[in-house]
Amino acid sequence: MNAPAISRYPVPDIAALPEDIRARILDVQQKAGFIPNVFLTLAHRPAEFRAFFAYHDALMLRDSGLSKAEREMIVVATSGANRCPYCIIAHGAILRVYAKNTLVADQVAINYRNADISERQKAMLEFALKVATRSAEVVDADYAALRGHGFSDEDIWDIGAIAAFFALSNRMADLIDMRPNDEFYLLGRTPRTP
Amino acid sequence: MNAPAISRYPVPDIAALPEDIRARILDVQQKAGFIPNVFLTLAHRPAEFRAFFAYHDALMLRDSGLSKAEREMIVVATSGANRCPYCIIAHGAILRVYAKNTLVADQVAINYRNADISERQKAMLEFALKVATRSAEVVDADYAALRGHGFSDEDIWDIGAIAAFFALSNRMADLIDMRPNDEFYLLGRTPRTP
Amino acid sequence: MNAPAISRYPVPDIAALPEDIRARILDVQQKAGFIPNVFLTLAHRPAEFRAFFAYHDALMLRDSGLSKAEREMIVVATSGANRCPYCIIAHGAILRVYAKNTLVADQVAINYRNADISERQKAMLEFALKVATRSAEVVDADYAALRGHGFSDEDIWDIGAIAAFFALSNRMADLIDMRPNDEFYLLGRTPRTP
Amino acid sequence: MNAPAISRYPVPDIAALPEDIRARILDVQQKAGFIPNVFLTLAHRPAEFRAFFAYHDALMLRDSGLSKAEREMIVVATSGANRCPYCIIAHGAILRVYAKNTLVADQVAINYRNADISERQKAMLEFALKVATRSAEVVDADYAALRGHGFSDEDIWDIGAIAAFFALSNRMADLIDMRPNDEFYLLGRTPRTP
Amino acid sequence: MNAPAISRYPVPDIAALPEDIRARILDVQQKAGFIPNVFLTLAHRPAEFRAFFAYHDALMLRDSGLSKAEREMIVVATSGANRCPYCIIAHGAILRVYAKNTLVADQVAINYRNADISERQKAMLEFALKVATRSAEVVDADYAALRGHGFSDEDIWDIGAIAAFFALSNRMADLIDMRPNDEFYLLGRTPRTP
Amino acid sequence: MNAPAISRYPVPDIAALPEDIRARILDVQQKAGFIPNVFLTLAHRPAEFRAFFAYHDALMLRDSGLSKAEREMIVVATSGANRCPYCIIAHGAILRVYAKNTLVADQVAINYRNADISERQKAMLEFALKVATRSAEVVDADYAALRGHGFSDEDIWDIGAIAAFFALSNRMADLIDMRPNDEFYLLGRTPRTP
Repeated sequence: MNAPAISRYPVPDIAALPEDIRARILDVQQKAGFIPNVFLTLAHRPAEFRAFFAYHDALMLRDSGLSKAEREMIVVATSGANRCPYCIIAHGAILRVYAKNTLVADQVAINYRNADISERQKAMLEFALKVATRSAEVVDADYAALRGHGFSDEDIWDIGAIAAFFALSNRMADLIDMRPNDEFYLLGRTPRTP
Repeated sequence: MNAPAISRYPVPDIAALPEDIRARILDVQQKAGFIPNVFLTLAHRPAEFRAFFAYHDALMLRDSGLSKAEREMIVVATSGANRCPYCIIAHGAILRVYAKNTLVADQVAINYRNADISERQKAMLEFALKVATRSAEVVDADYAALRGHGFSDEDIWDIGAIAAFFALSNRMADLIDMRPNDEFYLLGRTPRTP
Repeated sequence: MNAPAISRYPVPDIAALPEDIRARILDVQQKAGFIPNVFLTLAHRPAEFRAFFAYHDALMLRDSGLSKAEREMIVVATSGANRCPYCIIAHGAILRVYAKNTLVADQVAINYRNADISERQKAMLEFALKVATRSAEVVDADYAALRGHGFSDEDIWDIGAIAAFFALSNRMADLIDMRPNDEFYLLGRTPRTP
Repeated sequence: MNAPAISRYPVPDIAALPEDIRARILDVQQKAGFIPNVFLTLAHRPAEFRAFFAYHDALMLRDSGLSKAEREMIVVATSGANRCPYCIIAHGAILRVYAKNTLVADQVAINYRNADISERQKAMLEFALKVATRSAEVVDADYAALRGHGFSDEDIWDIGAIAAFFALSNRMADLIDMRPNDEFYLLGRTPRTP
Repeated sequence: MNAPAISRYPVPDIAALPEDIRARILDVQQKAGFIPNVFLTLAHRPAEFRAFFAYHDALMLRDSGLSKAEREMIVVATSGANRCPYCIIAHGAILRVYAKNTLVADQVAINYRNADISERQKAMLEFALKVATRSAEVVDADYAALRGHGFSDEDIWDIGAIAAFFALSNRMADLIDMRPNDEFYLLGRTPRTP
Repeated sequence: MNAPAISRYPVPDIAALPEDIRARILDVQQKAGFIPNVFLTLAHRPAEFRAFFAYHDALMLRDSGLSKAEREMIVVATSGANRCPYCIIAHGAILRVYAKNTLVADQVAINYRNADISERQKAMLEFALKVATRSAEVVDADYAALRGHGFSDEDIWDIGAIAAFFALSNRMADLIDMRPNDEFYLLGRTPRTP
């Protein structure tokens, strides 16, 4: 049986990619043990690939008042609202790893209201979902509510900007029918032994 | 009276910005005669600024089967669905200029169905709005319909990716309450004389 | 090139119209410098024409606690929610003229929350939009909120009745594909010189 | 126990009303045996009262390709979609009387798809509900579909205009919390004996 | 003329039904004077019939802090939201009988906000409708609000469970196009004489 | 740390339960290796417990044209639409086991359109989701479409009735905040070795 397609578009041969893109892909392959399909499928358009990952890194790797796990919670919750298979499955795995928690990704993808997270994190996700689904209704009172949970204005930018970036990411994945790697489904589901 | 705020966040002093960002801003100022607020307000976060405009340029300046006016139609129609003041007002102006048409921007922002555009362009906007508002429902039949209007698969990527990028852009503008420059409201509303 | 149709239905010859309708049309033509298409297109049905404009005048010309500009804000905001081209474009022009403000019509049509209007006017539009889009949910607490902004019960009737009348007007315009006159797009966009 | 209020606004004393309005009210009282509350409550604003009933009569009493029962079906179905108590209860009664059918009003108010009506009437109500709830999406294909069921363009105007007028009527009733007369609930529920 | 079908599926012959089901049907026929179609149509699947009515009885016949009329209000209001003809018509009749009130069933089916019921009952129906239409959003604050109206936690289970059971019931009725008996339309509409 | 609550309501002591319910619970514990929380939490109301599981078994254990895996697909897809944590997590596990497929449950819970299932199964889930979310719109054409995929009318009843039963089940789980057992998250995620 043939492997299922991972995109509606041609997937480039890694060897034929521009050097910087190939390097990035080989680097992630080395760290993860496999190449997440988002790298292979978006490489179809090198200029967009570079901008996409530059944006991703600017938000997800920066120093922030949000932990890396919290940032992935935002990705998973908003991708859940958008019903995006790639982003829920892939970032669900990353969230499990970062949070060292085998349950939280599925919980947050389905319904943050009864997830095993703090009230502060629920407020964070409530706002992220508002940005994801009805950002025209964001008002000053939303900022006030988040400040009341101890978030700085820069934290609030992070929350909103991650929700905004994955609004893009979810739509690109849906557009090309990006398939999550099989590896992601199981990743982080068993507690690591020391 | 003070000028109204253009962002919920501090707007950087141009002189203090990194050289590449300052150069980009001065360049657009020279061409447009004023600095669109998206440049000033997003410069609050230089790394995100660079990725944002790299992405924008990759989509909006590339050789494409879509004209520049058609690409701006996608921006205006999807921003209209999202009710994003900055993107409707600013890109409405750009659309009027590119299309050399004083009516089309308002028409497309409100309801593409009765705009003065071709059936092919209506099909393009119908798909763009699907990507913007319910991308999980994109199926192969949508691709077939667009191919029936003469769009190539690369054109379809362009349509969908522009809708996806402005899903990000709309949400960022709403997040920070980005204010459209007053200049945009009138721009392109009177036919230019030779 | 033929002028585009202004209605899905036949547009009557002014000379053949009943005297009262012809007089009304010539009167508005003299004041505005052109005949707004709503007059020509609805004249297809004289009895409905008379009732429509009698209703319009009863609401829009009466002494009211709402200024004429505020009443047009209600028209533009609710027509914006309904995505009605004729009413947004035509009444947007009227709002610019009454408010002597070149920006407010587009702002209110897109998203009243960040328009340059008072908190009292935002409360007025929030209620108007509730009547326009989910009037079954109107409760006494809505009246109390508006009274808290200084609106009398007669003012509240005005707000709701204007929203209700343009619920009719928007649907009639959509039904017949009523086309806004080109003149409306530019009207009121440049400050008048004395 | 006091009788429940029939409006959030003062209900005028019939004796104090302008002559034409009083005459209309006494006329309907004589025919119906009671005064429907829409007459008493809207008389609070005589100019709007006159326009309202002039519009109503222009649509509901004119010669039309639609029977009077069919016109009331449109009222009941669209008022059902809007969940308007006064219009469902009062026009449901009128529909039962006109159609000489004790079941059809409740059927149409709830779900026209399984009402005891013809396929042509279902197409009529499908279009009326589109005008009532999402008129911006009305396109030429909707006209073609109705013509395929034998409706003339004037019939289609009637369908759409009735849906549009009751969009106004429903919102006015909700605005003032117009109470249906108790008499309407039972009216037309028992087959008349000759 | 043939009687209209009461189900999309075959309706079993009562004589051929299992003894317990036939006994139940004959019992209800004796009490009501006719056989409600829910019994005849669901008997097509005896095992599901038994579970359905066992569930129904467990909720609707148990000792509860809610009166029988209040339980039927929940049925009618949530069935109204789901636009289910059988359940609105049949349980509307039962509500009229239990409440000895000829108006309340139509009021609650259309819009509980302006029904002639207590504030406590409006809070009950608001919660029931939340369970019926967006149960994922039920949070502890909803419980607190109901406790503030004097409902015990067991009462809240009753409210939610009845809404949940009729979520099933409405969907089964729609699935098979279950037709309400003509008798239900008039039942309870005239005050009984002693 | 205490174990998190599995219900908003008291969870009965197994020893104190009626004999038939205790037997059922011990039986499932023996088979599954743990007691799914739906058994413990619903046992708070024995009569409803019995009806719930009788209904469940009537639908899920009967001879059917649908395989057991297909029936669980319906549960998972409709519970996904309703965002019900318990039903998605628990029945996702059961689906993985029945389908001997480690990916399909997450796929179907998120978006059946790009799941690794047949076109026939996609048609089945499209109908199940219609019953789950807007059953008032089910029409004869839906039956025709399913028959075109080879489903019998009894199969269609099964599809719709399972969607209907889990409309109840999802709402009950949300009402009491039923917590999925931790065991379900990992169950069926690794291919069994013989």
